[in-house]
Amino acid sequence: MHISKRTQKMCQPALLKYYPLVEEAKKKGRKVYFLNIGQPDIKTPDPFLKAVCAHQPKVLEYQTPEGILALRTASSSYYQRLGLNYTKNDIFITNGGSEALLFTFLSICDPGDEILTPEPLYSIYKEIAAAANVKLVGIRTHAEDGFALPSKDAIEALITKQTRAILITNPGNPTGKVFSKEELNCLSELSVKHALFLVSDEVYREFLYENLTYLSPAQDQKIPEQVILVDSISKRYSACGARIGFIVLKNQALKESIKKLCQMRLSVSEIDQVGAVNLMELEADFFQSIIKEYSYRRAIVFEGLKKIPGVICKMPKGAFYFMVKLPIIRADHFIEWLISEFAYENETVLLSPADDFYLDPEGGKDEVRLAYVLNAKDMQKAMGILEKALEAYKIAFPEMCK
Amino acid sequence: MHISKRTQKMCQPALLKYYPLVEEAKKKGRKVYFLNIGQPDIKTPDPFLKAVCAHQPKVLEYQTPEGILALRTASSSYYQRLGLNYTKNDIFITNGGSEALLFTFLSICDPGDEILTPEPLYSIYKEIAAAANVKLVGIRTHAEDGFALPSKDAIEALITKQTRAILITNPGNPTGKVFSKEELNCLSELSVKHALFLVSDEVYREFLYENLTYLSPAQDQKIPEQVILVDSISKRYSACGARIGFIVLKNQALKESIKKLCQMRLSVSEIDQVGAVNLMELEADFFQSIIKEYSYRRAIVFEGLKKIPGVICKMPKGAFYFMVKLPIIRADHFIEWLISEFAYENETVLLSPADDFYLDPEGGKDEVRLAYVLNAKDMQKAMGILEKALEAYKIAFPEMCK
Repeated sequence: MHISKRTQKMCQPALLKYYPLVEEAKKKGRKVYFLNIGQPDIKTPDPFLKAVCAHQPKVLEYQTPEGILALRTASSSYYQRLGLNYTKNDIFITNGGSEALLFTFLSICDPGDEILTPEPLYSIYKEIAAAANVKLVGIRTHAEDGFALPSKDAIEALITKQTRAILITNPGNPTGKVFSKEELNCLSELSVKHALFLVSDEVYREFLYENLTYLSPAQDQKIPEQVILVDSISKRYSACGARIGFIVLKNQALKESIKKLCQMRLSVSEIDQVGAVNLMELEADFFQSIIKEYSYRRAIVFEGLKKIPGVICKMPKGAFYFMVKLPIIRADHFIEWLISEFAYENETVLLSPADDFYLDPEGGKDEVRLAYVLNAKDMQKAMGILEKALEAYKIAFPEMCK
Repeated sequence: MHISKRTQKMCQPALLKYYPLVEEAKKKGRKVYFLNIGQPDIKTPDPFLKAVCAHQPKVLEYQTPEGILALRTASSSYYQRLGLNYTKNDIFITNGGSEALLFTFLSICDPGDEILTPEPLYSIYKEIAAAANVKLVGIRTHAEDGFALPSKDAIEALITKQTRAILITNPGNPTGKVFSKEELNCLSELSVKHALFLVSDEVYREFLYENLTYLSPAQDQKIPEQVILVDSISKRYSACGARIGFIVLKNQALKESIKKLCQMRLSVSEIDQVGAVNLMELEADFFQSIIKEYSYRRAIVFEGLKKIPGVICKMPKGAFYFMVKLPIIRADHFIEWLISEFAYENETVLLSPADDFYLDPEGGKDEVRLAYVLNAKDMQKAMGILEKALEAYKIAFPEMCK
């Protein structure tokens, strides 16, 4: 029997190979700090489960494919509060942000079509692109300058007849990069000039530090037809286990395609939608304490990293990740050693190898991603362990160090 | 900007066009019996919402992409009770049966590949195939002989170098057809001879009448590597609003592909999975009263249809649909008239036009699908209305009648 090439091309997350080693470490009684995944530790706000429990239908029925009216209405109000003029008819509820991305790729690309996206990139983009037979083309950015976009000319040189869209994650995963007004303008101009969609994945929208103002292609009055917002409640409300995402757009022709994709899978979870309505109604002050907490952790991690010789990393302005260049040759080898060999006071850390975040097969070999989703005390401890580990690694494997 | 050809090829359900007319009918004070969709009226069993309310995690977290262990374990027990030897490692939980189908199509077909399936077919198959760039090839069956499969030679003649699988819905939607042992053997032999997957969509598995025994390609010891079961809790437990489906298979290479697709979308709803565990543990006697109820309705509908001159329809053996040939030229015209013009004692019925259920653009023009998902009394009334309606239609539009 034939297994499809498109799924054979897909990759399993590199992280998976470390889990058996984590089990071994735990058996040895070692404590592991998990800095590898973006699973927030913040409590899911009570209104979600309260609404879920209060919802007692006789029959759990198919819901409108585009999403229940109450959730689209609450979402519209949320966007209005951000200054974005999206009505309930501009909003499609999806099974998480990942389905929002899949539907976006399927509706703007045919097999072989291309999407430009800054690299390092959210690794799941690669898998969705493979499943949808879409070619992702990386706009290479670098840790040394905080993952700034290259010049407009350099980006334009990557546009071909097959290019259908530019896709950004803003704030970025894995980089924590927040795009500047100038960078967004540059992408906007290119999307107009070449009739491309501009897809803005903003699932970390609220995670902005240093009092940065929210900036989005959706604010650009010149390109309402071009902009596709991808969104999710997962990070914003610490509700990854509820699968509620959003595609938000003004383009009528594209809406028709998105609607058909929604109809294809009939419905999104009734209960998750009911719970999410209450979350969308939380006011901006809900985020203030959370941002304060993440901001504090971010400072601790940055202090910790600065102390380690040879580490290259600019302070990220958003999301809850650090993309860090380490003074080593191969991050995957270092991470495997960290979890299987190393311990400091019987504790160690798990990091993400960065090669998953690159299209370039040579990209990210000496980089790791680190999520600050543990409390401040644990983050501080984890940074101390990382420092000790790099010292020990340099002695154990001098040939693997820079 | 470019809208993809694949989504432009997709169709909106023909039914949608009637909804504005339904609103008009309601405004006139008319009662409408909705026989058009397979949304069961049976109460969702209490254990679902009880489990949901009892589940009070601090954080709604990403769950294992393949589905939570408790649900895969409970599902394995369910399959063991049916005599199918599937372990928790053979089971993938999906966002409803529709995602199970999408992942199946993506993992066994590359763009341009073909899947054979009896026609009339579940209309969503067409949409999923279009989104996945898969070509569906119909094995034409007919109301006159209860939608029996044609000869083995006739089916084999449809197999090309691009054919990757045979897909059946058993019991069938929209036909209510239950495949015989001989028919299943024929498909099994063809799948072995041509190295095809045999996909069995069994979401109506329990809806078998006349004490029929459950038969499935999954019972065939000769083709464990070939069989892919597609399943869902939607119909079985009257829980369409919970999005819980299943892909069940033994083929190790294909499992790798399915697993990557599951990882691509991270997780299925935590809450829906927790609720579903309890449903999977309901014993067979749970179904007995439901089957009795549907069996009773089925008899009422069949009695009603038999009375109407010119109606062609064999008694379906499973699911909860009748696919009925009416003595008219165009079902869509009749349905539109039913809902916008006709009323009997200020009541009318909404039916599904059958052309959605065909690949053949000429198929089903004189057929409708009718779901018996209302209580017996309402079904009886609805059949009376249909009889009166056909009489009146013949007078109003003799040229549209046979």
